Amino acid sequence: MEKTSTDTLPLTMISSEERETICIFGTGDMGRSLGLRMLQCGYSIVFGSRTPRMSSLLPKGADVLSYSEAAQKSDTIIIAIHREHYDFLTALTEVLQGKILVDVSNNLKVNQYPESNAEYLAQLVPGAHVVKAFNTLSAWALQSGALDASRQVFVCGNDNKAKQKVMDIAHTLGLTPLDQGALRAAKEIENYPLQLFPMWKVPFYLSACLCVFFFIYCVIREVIYSYVNDKKDITFRMAVSIPNRVCPMVALILLAVVYLPGVIAAILQLYRGTKYRRFPDWLDRWMLCRKQLGLLGLGFAFLHVLYTLVIPIRYYVRWRLGNATATQAITKKENPFSTSTAWLNDSYISLGILGFFFFVLLGITSLPSVSNSVNWREFRFVQSKLGYLTLILCTAHTLIYGGKRFLSPSSLRWYLPSTHIIALIIPCTVLVIKFILILPCIDKVLTWIRQGWERSSKSSESAMNGKTDI
Amino acid sequence: MEKTSTDTLPLTMISSEERETICIFGTGDMGRSLGLRMLQCGYSIVFGSRTPRMSSLLPKGADVLSYSEAAQKSDTIIIAIHREHYDFLTALTEVLQGKILVDVSNNLKVNQYPESNAEYLAQLVPGAHVVKAFNTLSAWALQSGALDASRQVFVCGNDNKAKQKVMDIAHTLGLTPLDQGALRAAKEIENYPLQLFPMWKVPFYLSACLCVFFFIYCVIREVIYSYVNDKKDITFRMAVSIPNRVCPMVALILLAVVYLPGVIAAILQLYRGTKYRRFPDWLDRWMLCRKQLGLLGLGFAFLHVLYTLVIPIRYYVRWRLGNATATQAITKKENPFSTSTAWLNDSYISLGILGFFFFVLLGITSLPSVSNSVNWREFRFVQSKLGYLTLILCTAHTLIYGGKRFLSPSSLRWYLPSTHIIALIIPCTVLVIKFILILPCIDKVLTWIRQGWERSSKSSESAMNGKTDI
Amino acid sequence: MEKTSTDTLPLTMISSEERETICIFGTGDMGRSLGLRMLQCGYSIVFGSRTPRMSSLLPKGADVLSYSEAAQKSDTIIIAIHREHYDFLTALTEVLQGKILVDVSNNLKVNQYPESNAEYLAQLVPGAHVVKAFNTLSAWALQSGALDASRQVFVCGNDNKAKQKVMDIAHTLGLTPLDQGALRAAKEIENYPLQLFPMWKVPFYLSACLCVFFFIYCVIREVIYSYVNDKKDITFRMAVSIPNRVCPMVALILLAVVYLPGVIAAILQLYRGTKYRRFPDWLDRWMLCRKQLGLLGLGFAFLHVLYTLVIPIRYYVRWRLGNATATQAITKKENPFSTSTAWLNDSYISLGILGFFFFVLLGITSLPSVSNSVNWREFRFVQSKLGYLTLILCTAHTLIYGGKRFLSPSSLRWYLPSTHIIALIIPCTVLVIKFILILPCIDKVLTWIRQGWERSSKSSESAMNGKTDI
Repeated sequence: MEKTSTDTLPLTMISSEERETICIFGTGDMGRSLGLRMLQCGYSIVFGSRTPRMSSLLPKGADVLSYSEAAQKSDTIIIAIHREHYDFLTALTEVLQGKILVDVSNNLKVNQYPESNAEYLAQLVPGAHVVKAFNTLSAWALQSGALDASRQVFVCGNDNKAKQKVMDIAHTLGLTPLDQGALRAAKEIENYPLQLFPMWKVPFYLSACLCVFFFIYCVIREVIYSYVNDKKDITFRMAVSIPNRVCPMVALILLAVVYLPGVIAAILQLYRGTKYRRFPDWLDRWMLCRKQLGLLGLGFAFLHVLYTLVIPIRYYVRWRLGNATATQAITKKENPFSTSTAWLNDSYISLGILGFFFFVLLGITSLPSVSNSVNWREFRFVQSKLGYLTLILCTAHTLIYGGKRFLSPSSLRWYLPSTHIIALIIPCTVLVIKFILILPCIDKVLTWIRQGWERSSKSSESAMNGKTDI
Repeated sequence: MEKTSTDTLPLTMISSEERETICIFGTGDMGRSLGLRMLQCGYSIVFGSRTPRMSSLLPKGADVLSYSEAAQKSDTIIIAIHREHYDFLTALTEVLQGKILVDVSNNLKVNQYPESNAEYLAQLVPGAHVVKAFNTLSAWALQSGALDASRQVFVCGNDNKAKQKVMDIAHTLGLTPLDQGALRAAKEIENYPLQLFPMWKVPFYLSACLCVFFFIYCVIREVIYSYVNDKKDITFRMAVSIPNRVCPMVALILLAVVYLPGVIAAILQLYRGTKYRRFPDWLDRWMLCRKQLGLLGLGFAFLHVLYTLVIPIRYYVRWRLGNATATQAITKKENPFSTSTAWLNDSYISLGILGFFFFVLLGITSLPSVSNSVNWREFRFVQSKLGYLTLILCTAHTLIYGGKRFLSPSSLRWYLPSTHIIALIIPCTVLVIKFILILPCIDKVLTWIRQGWERSSKSSESAMNGKTDI
Repeated sequence: MEKTSTDTLPLTMISSEERETICIFGTGDMGRSLGLRMLQCGYSIVFGSRTPRMSSLLPKGADVLSYSEAAQKSDTIIIAIHREHYDFLTALTEVLQGKILVDVSNNLKVNQYPESNAEYLAQLVPGAHVVKAFNTLSAWALQSGALDASRQVFVCGNDNKAKQKVMDIAHTLGLTPLDQGALRAAKEIENYPLQLFPMWKVPFYLSACLCVFFFIYCVIREVIYSYVNDKKDITFRMAVSIPNRVCPMVALILLAVVYLPGVIAAILQLYRGTKYRRFPDWLDRWMLCRKQLGLLGLGFAFLHVLYTLVIPIRYYVRWRLGNATATQAITKKENPFSTSTAWLNDSYISLGILGFFFFVLLGITSLPSVSNSVNWREFRFVQSKLGYLTLILCTAHTLIYGGKRFLSPSSLRWYLPSTHIIALIIPCTVLVIKFILILPCIDKVLTWIRQGWERSSKSSESAMNGKTDI
């Protein structure tokens, strides 16, 4: 899928006079890897080192000089040194005057220092043009050419010409430079490679907690209850049956939790009578991780589908059905067909299939490349209209499946209600509120508020003024 | 998945002298949201307003001045005002001389005005450099940082320097500017946010019609027929059985419809003896929505797979199989094994699985990020070779499934043939014609024609001339 | 999904004085298509031709002149001529002085000539600025606007201004120019459209061989064996049962083969005591196609899931289960329930489901747009941690499924062991070695080595030096 011919094709030799020289300070892993790649792509490389000795580790064809000698050879100097050792650069201020310094350093922790490494470097060597770049690359990937996850190079810097130069180098190395603006973006660029799915943390822990809770709840209510009451060992249900009870519940709750903040926000706006007051922080943060919540929900729905479809292959199910049929044959009793059962059974299956189908559609449209190719109106249409359709279908699926069981007292074991009842609380709440919110009388007020109208306001004149503005 | 740290991290304070000032005309929702975001990203903001009074609605830290005063504070002026109120800008022509005016306006309807808002603005203030940008953003997303679907900013303008400036601002705001060329692209940029899946409309309606038709057809042929003839109530079949008959039919027809325009085009070229005449418009438009047709077909195929796999879980099926087995046991009749039935049954299952597998592959390669990473030859290979393989597999699956039933008169009910026969018409036609087209003698002529040869032509000399050209 | 309004909307007429003229040498397919598109996007077009006669084939509104006359009309000249006919350009050297020549040519074979067409053109006309572009586009797609797979235009050239000009034209045509650096990148750009999934070849052939091998093995061991020994015709098993035995085996082996080079590399590093020696070439190449191996494995896993889920629908299975139940009923023997069988059965089903789920997750993260939006640390986490979890789950699934059968002598037929045993060799080896490698004592040494430590080295001082560097 990737253009990798640069990585494997031997490069035609380029006569040395047309080669451009790049200087690299530091002979560590990153310095060497960048140097190797640059040599392969037709640059001439000079390493600057404290102890300038050629070593077998350095890529063949590169020179090693002292820092100041190396700096004189090139206008572009890659600083592949840890921030802690930047001090020596102050001594070179004169040589570095007007040169492009490319800071490729990373830290060990997010926000380790008050200012970013690149800004610190710019303070140390005020006469140079500091550009932050290449820090998100892996040395191994550079050497091997396996740049799958890291073809992107975030570049920032205050001097546009210097930045352009570095972006050109990145292009030549077969990378994709992304201009991130001024040097003040360096902090973010330095934090980027240290992140591990920051937006997924809360949704992940939430779904993990839900999983554990429902699993223990089901084990108590089914396995332990039947062991205590009937002395039956049905622990084997923990392998498939109980996961298949936990997954749909968690999926449904997560899906409802995606749409809950929206209705809370609408209620808040109705209550306040204005949209011009910020939502509480927790609501804002909740809204920002709706995509992650939805995708986790989709994962559980996917597991539920698989767990459901394997039911007829299971030994236990085959044994039970075979026994039932054999008993029917032996007792010669007839098993009458119930049309209403067939209707109920087929309905919740069909609703579940359609719900899963739209859930998958929602998931596909949240792929970065798909969501980038739709406009805001289309995205809203899919995520809001299709999303609610999915929620309605899945809630109806659970409701019909639960069916009569909800009301029968036999479904209460040790006063614990069926998991379906618990799982339905949030989805039903969301749907009921949403239904109320789209009643014409309430929807009209909400639309007014969202267009800038305020119930009782001193700034109504200002709002009127806003009418002419976008 | 998204870099959102800019959205949540408090920004280190930047001393005011290094801040750049941007002026925003209009204090509506969009103006305020852009202003807030720019303030957060380190710009200094001045609002221009008809009634310059500070209001609680405006982001803290921004100034509000009259239009002309505000305009003097900055070289870049965002015009966040509805097009209908642009007139007042003519009075400011002098102040706006040489400044960058960023038109962020949208219309309510596609092609509402003869010229785009940005071009209209450029006519009103001829001395300014008008750049169209930011109109595809949502105000809410800007405020909250949830820029999933709208990180892209389409930018166009006649002055390259002005355009570059606006693209730099977009970068600083964490957005992805996309240069769309000269200001004449503004109309398209203004229409973009008003579209709602324009390419999907025809395919969607086509498949909806097919669905409704086949559903009614099946209900008449199966449910009503058996109610009238046998007085049996099998309405429950409308929940799963009939959808599972409709979905594969629609999927197969949509897949065939993807490849039908290709063979029609080939026949047209053969008939005309030249490729140098335009295809009729309907054929061109048909060819352009093949991807959408195929993806809808994949959706129906996916539903068909799910509906098929739940068969053994259904109450009706379990009841029927259980009864059959019980009857077999009671009557002590043996049920002989038929190898040919096993072969037929396993064959169409296997063909269906493989067909679905390749259909999914086709779907994955039409994801924007995947299709962008393959070259034209690879894309053609997948979409043409794999596509026909899929069509062959799916057609064979249906043919074998329909099997003997096609010929038996019992399959005719009320003179209505089985749905399989109807569904197979287009796929078989496409495959037969394609088979004829790849016969060596015909393929040779077609290849000649596609390389520029013409059967009877005055311009053959010109075609010869073309031989040396690409 | 795609913005295609440019393709269909009629363009408002632009007065001729503001139109820019572009010259196209060559009236072949590509020249005409580019010309048509440029005319549609508001450029004025002049064709240069050996025999300058207007022809019906050329887009309306374009002029046709002799080469030298046409060249004088524009600063930008598209050379839409086969490389073999470039010679005549030497005669025009004077006219082409300082002009931008855009080479759009392609070759028929990879690396057909020692130097790229664009570099050859630059040698022929030294005074002109040669830019390579547009060669990856298809003429048909340009004419019809169906630019799905080829909106990308790779551009390279030594003169930055000329390159920028060509990129602007590409933008205006609605394409996405990608700067690939200097003209020496032209060779790669010319090879690009000739590739047909180069990275997929080895993985594809490997999996095809595995498939064929396991298929024949299973046919011999099951179908032929039972025909020879029991005279039973079970050839129908070749349609579903045997594919469902082949697919999981191939999937498991491919998944293990993804992680095998990693452990081999670790062993090599431990053995050599240094990371500063290159891996053998085959290991490097193996590492680079791990993604493709994994995705092919996922494809087989997907087929395995489908083949497994259709089991209860199969005629053969229904016949067998029905017979067994009927026999049970007739003989009135009871079929006792075995909790341990239920546990084993449910466990391998559950492990398989979870394994497949994580396998799908791995596949999704290798989509270009997803892997581009995660950083290196996140990518490593998913591909390494989740990958090994998948391998463990799938291996355990196979182990438990194979279960007791492994040891029973009855599973040996004609001295051929069960396929499970063969399929488990590589996965178990990988997991055992990996387990040894993460033992604290060995992991510590490996971490040292990977941080630059060397066991016995003259260059240890240099490695020490590297400590301060990145």
